[in-house]
Amino acid sequence: MQPAATLVALLHGPDQPGIVARTAGWIFARQGNILHADQHRDMEAGEFFQRIEWVPAGAEPGEEAAEFRAFALSLGMAARVAVSTHRARGALFVSREDHCFHDLALRSQAGEFAGDFACVISNHPDLGEVARHYGLAFHHVPVTVATKADAEKQQLEILRAAGAEFVVLARYMQVLSGDFLEKAGQPVINIHHSFLPAFAGGKPYHQAHARGVKLIGATAHYATGVLDDGPIIQQDVVRVTHRHSVEDLVRKGRDLEKLVLAQALRWHLDNRVLVYGNKTVVFD
Amino acid sequence: MQPAATLVALLHGPDQPGIVARTAGWIFARQGNILHADQHRDMEAGEFFQRIEWVPAGAEPGEEAAEFRAFALSLGMAARVAVSTHRARGALFVSREDHCFHDLALRSQAGEFAGDFACVISNHPDLGEVARHYGLAFHHVPVTVATKADAEKQQLEILRAAGAEFVVLARYMQVLSGDFLEKAGQPVINIHHSFLPAFAGGKPYHQAHARGVKLIGATAHYATGVLDDGPIIQQDVVRVTHRHSVEDLVRKGRDLEKLVLAQALRWHLDNRVLVYGNKTVVFD
Amino acid sequence: MQPAATLVALLHGPDQPGIVARTAGWIFARQGNILHADQHRDMEAGEFFQRIEWVPAGAEPGEEAAEFRAFALSLGMAARVAVSTHRARGALFVSREDHCFHDLALRSQAGEFAGDFACVISNHPDLGEVARHYGLAFHHVPVTVATKADAEKQQLEILRAAGAEFVVLARYMQVLSGDFLEKAGQPVINIHHSFLPAFAGGKPYHQAHARGVKLIGATAHYATGVLDDGPIIQQDVVRVTHRHSVEDLVRKGRDLEKLVLAQALRWHLDNRVLVYGNKTVVFD
Amino acid sequence: MQPAATLVALLHGPDQPGIVARTAGWIFARQGNILHADQHRDMEAGEFFQRIEWVPAGAEPGEEAAEFRAFALSLGMAARVAVSTHRARGALFVSREDHCFHDLALRSQAGEFAGDFACVISNHPDLGEVARHYGLAFHHVPVTVATKADAEKQQLEILRAAGAEFVVLARYMQVLSGDFLEKAGQPVINIHHSFLPAFAGGKPYHQAHARGVKLIGATAHYATGVLDDGPIIQQDVVRVTHRHSVEDLVRKGRDLEKLVLAQALRWHLDNRVLVYGNKTVVFD
Repeated sequence: MQPAATLVALLHGPDQPGIVARTAGWIFARQGNILHADQHRDMEAGEFFQRIEWVPAGAEPGEEAAEFRAFALSLGMAARVAVSTHRARGALFVSREDHCFHDLALRSQAGEFAGDFACVISNHPDLGEVARHYGLAFHHVPVTVATKADAEKQQLEILRAAGAEFVVLARYMQVLSGDFLEKAGQPVINIHHSFLPAFAGGKPYHQAHARGVKLIGATAHYATGVLDDGPIIQQDVVRVTHRHSVEDLVRKGRDLEKLVLAQALRWHLDNRVLVYGNKTVVFD
Repeated sequence: MQPAATLVALLHGPDQPGIVARTAGWIFARQGNILHADQHRDMEAGEFFQRIEWVPAGAEPGEEAAEFRAFALSLGMAARVAVSTHRARGALFVSREDHCFHDLALRSQAGEFAGDFACVISNHPDLGEVARHYGLAFHHVPVTVATKADAEKQQLEILRAAGAEFVVLARYMQVLSGDFLEKAGQPVINIHHSFLPAFAGGKPYHQAHARGVKLIGATAHYATGVLDDGPIIQQDVVRVTHRHSVEDLVRKGRDLEKLVLAQALRWHLDNRVLVYGNKTVVFD
Repeated sequence: MQPAATLVALLHGPDQPGIVARTAGWIFARQGNILHADQHRDMEAGEFFQRIEWVPAGAEPGEEAAEFRAFALSLGMAARVAVSTHRARGALFVSREDHCFHDLALRSQAGEFAGDFACVISNHPDLGEVARHYGLAFHHVPVTVATKADAEKQQLEILRAAGAEFVVLARYMQVLSGDFLEKAGQPVINIHHSFLPAFAGGKPYHQAHARGVKLIGATAHYATGVLDDGPIIQQDVVRVTHRHSVEDLVRKGRDLEKLVLAQALRWHLDNRVLVYGNKTVVFD
Repeated sequence: MQPAATLVALLHGPDQPGIVARTAGWIFARQGNILHADQHRDMEAGEFFQRIEWVPAGAEPGEEAAEFRAFALSLGMAARVAVSTHRARGALFVSREDHCFHDLALRSQAGEFAGDFACVISNHPDLGEVARHYGLAFHHVPVTVATKADAEKQQLEILRAAGAEFVVLARYMQVLSGDFLEKAGQPVINIHHSFLPAFAGGKPYHQAHARGVKLIGATAHYATGVLDDGPIIQQDVVRVTHRHSVEDLVRKGRDLEKLVLAQALRWHLDNRVLVYGNKTVVFD
């Protein structure tokens, strides 16, 4: 017997009295059973945020999802509602560095994610064979300064053909244009190998080594048109000393990057991340 | 203008459909405004836990608190309801080690706690002067094997006279009897200087050093009749190496103990900790 | 051009005046250049420990290694001397859980270790195909209560044939007998999925969940005849809450186990770990 | 009986063959007994660093210290040599925030530091009484834009009169001029309440909150003429979520600041910190 389908709503909008009772009441009136409900108020901004997960009673889940969105709208709230039986499909962008790629592919095989990788896109052919070994379709899309616009067009076509609902940049060493991000129209999760906002831009481990920091970090964030500046989902750090060379930082950083990116993706696919302004609310 | 009084309810009992909607609905029906609501389900045990904080509309807060307790009871739930304007008063038990004592007293002065220390009780006179410097009543109650029962009687009287609603054992080096804990009838928070359940009992840093562990820990827990076995509220660890002597472990451990005990007490006084069985739910 | 061969000596014995100057002087007298030297004194035990790495001037490295061992012996010290050009070969024991296996195999491919896996031994056939995919010889040696002695004989033969100088138990779910450990005569590194000495034995995540701890851990240690009691090389922990089920602990634990075991093996192969009594000195 | 005086040398200079053997040999030749020796090579810069601690045999420690400095100089090395029986005296600069002040004063009382606070200097009178309670001389030196130069003159006189060999800025909310730092001629340790180089300058917790980071940090560094840019001694971070307001960040940050500053000062007074370029080597 399959587990019952659940609905997960992420909603936010202007705070108002009784909002918690209203959403719970709406679900209760339809005999739904709330499994989890978590909310947050940004007191300064007067903004309300909620993640609520429930088992709908009788209705077809997709229908109740649509009805809930309409209900939220009537309260002045924006809502995203996911049905648990739907597994989101995503695209994995890689270059030559393979540690995040292997890590995500193996976690996917182990069933750690509530979604699946539909395809792998790379500007280098190197990871084609291992991608296929993992059973993942591999697309080699070379990128040069001259061909970047064309390459992005090709990438967008692959995303559409694959029905990609999310994109993960697993140490993809190219900057995607604001135009690409807009046309993709789907969340793009990037891993930056530093504790942002420190050491944005290129060669962050070299920057960190030169500055003599005692901790190095990694940051998973949604990509925006501004490089390394999008809403942060997860960060972590690890201790380093004067004994560590840039190469040691790179090696230690790989473990950080794997953990931080995998955690960010897991939260994203569990519908736990709400973006507002340039920040995130993570209902973990 | 003072901030409005809020009510914080901690309730738990057998899980049942619609419970989230019911509690929210009860408050909404009285025009209360829910500020925070957090719940947890123990799926195996079929148990439901909730912390809910709201601004009552018109009613006298104490009355609404009593009514909510009755309402929870009618749902088969046990509920504790606190009024934010009430600052709980507690007793601090100390011996000679003063780091947790200073730390708690200074945090109390800095306004970090939602309660106050009404008195200090010690089996040694050493900290009397500094206690008075912090403006705290100090009671010296010597304890020997022969006088322990009498000493506990005296301590209970001090607790009653001070109206103590909680007790903190800030490196109090005596074991309180099960009889004392029962008669005190108030939560007693202890700090144990190890990562429980490893190294329970005496001289845990010596034990840790002898075993050659690479991390040492501290554990804040509610005291029960069984030594070092009560429900754990908070734990933390710090890295050590072969270079650290027992004395270094003691020094490093002091910082851990301060942080872990202060965090546990803050959560307790914010009504964030629910005990069930031998475990805690911490709504942080 | 290859990097020059270096020698790494790990020595320990009764502390004595001038010991640091003597070892440095011995190397200097042979025109060797010391790259790293780190020492430790256990003041209580009166024991001296040193790791010293140098570039030998003219002599054949293997010869100078033997001479250094003799020199150390003349000082009453036990010494292990490794030549950097020699890559130790080891055996990987696995069962069905594959996360540590994949992690070690991928790190090995990425060049993170100063040694290589010569073969994989498992009591289940499941990981045979992936092992071969990584280019590793796979040996299926079933183990039952009745056949355990025979199975260990077979395993010892595989170790000898492979020239194994170390063994890694990567979540190998069988207890090796004291007799096996003695006959193997090589260091055996195990990963235990708890913060030892807490939760030794079977099902540690279940034990941790039942006790309500706020941190779970993993411990890499050398295996001895006493279960889960050997010298600890590395430990780490991760925070958990009441929200985490046993399954969540298992998932979070996998990441810990991978990191802790890989770090322990890296230190071991870099000749950074000295065992004495039931403890380790890790020159990191 | 007092413990024997030890000498601690921190030396650095161009790397050269045999340097480890030479320093050890120099000490051995005078019958000194080396307790600890730790060295580091910056391979890129070709620089050698060493911390070496020994018990001198017969000579007056101050004399042997001077001789060692001369010896180091003859090797082209700069050396600082401290005698363990000398307790360095320092000045504590504070403003109104008192958490680091209390923390340092209490640690000093508990004997955690190998030096002492000779005086407290503040631009506000608020902490005068508690300073005196700790037995510390308190100097109120008001600072305005107009009087800053005069105030610094006055502060320098206090430092000289007190024989201050180090300065700690314990959340002193004024920027010291490059001129002051030069004339003071002693190491000045500052605590910055962010993970530098992120959020340098004013109101770092507000900056961190606005950026939506998931970790906040604190950094202890030597002050230089460039604001928040000196050599980093120690850093640490703590996890925050969207639930934490700026006030929560401030509160959580206080604990970080205390730990990081105390650790940096302990290392400094134990002669474990060597500055070169804009970085530190910390022999911990």
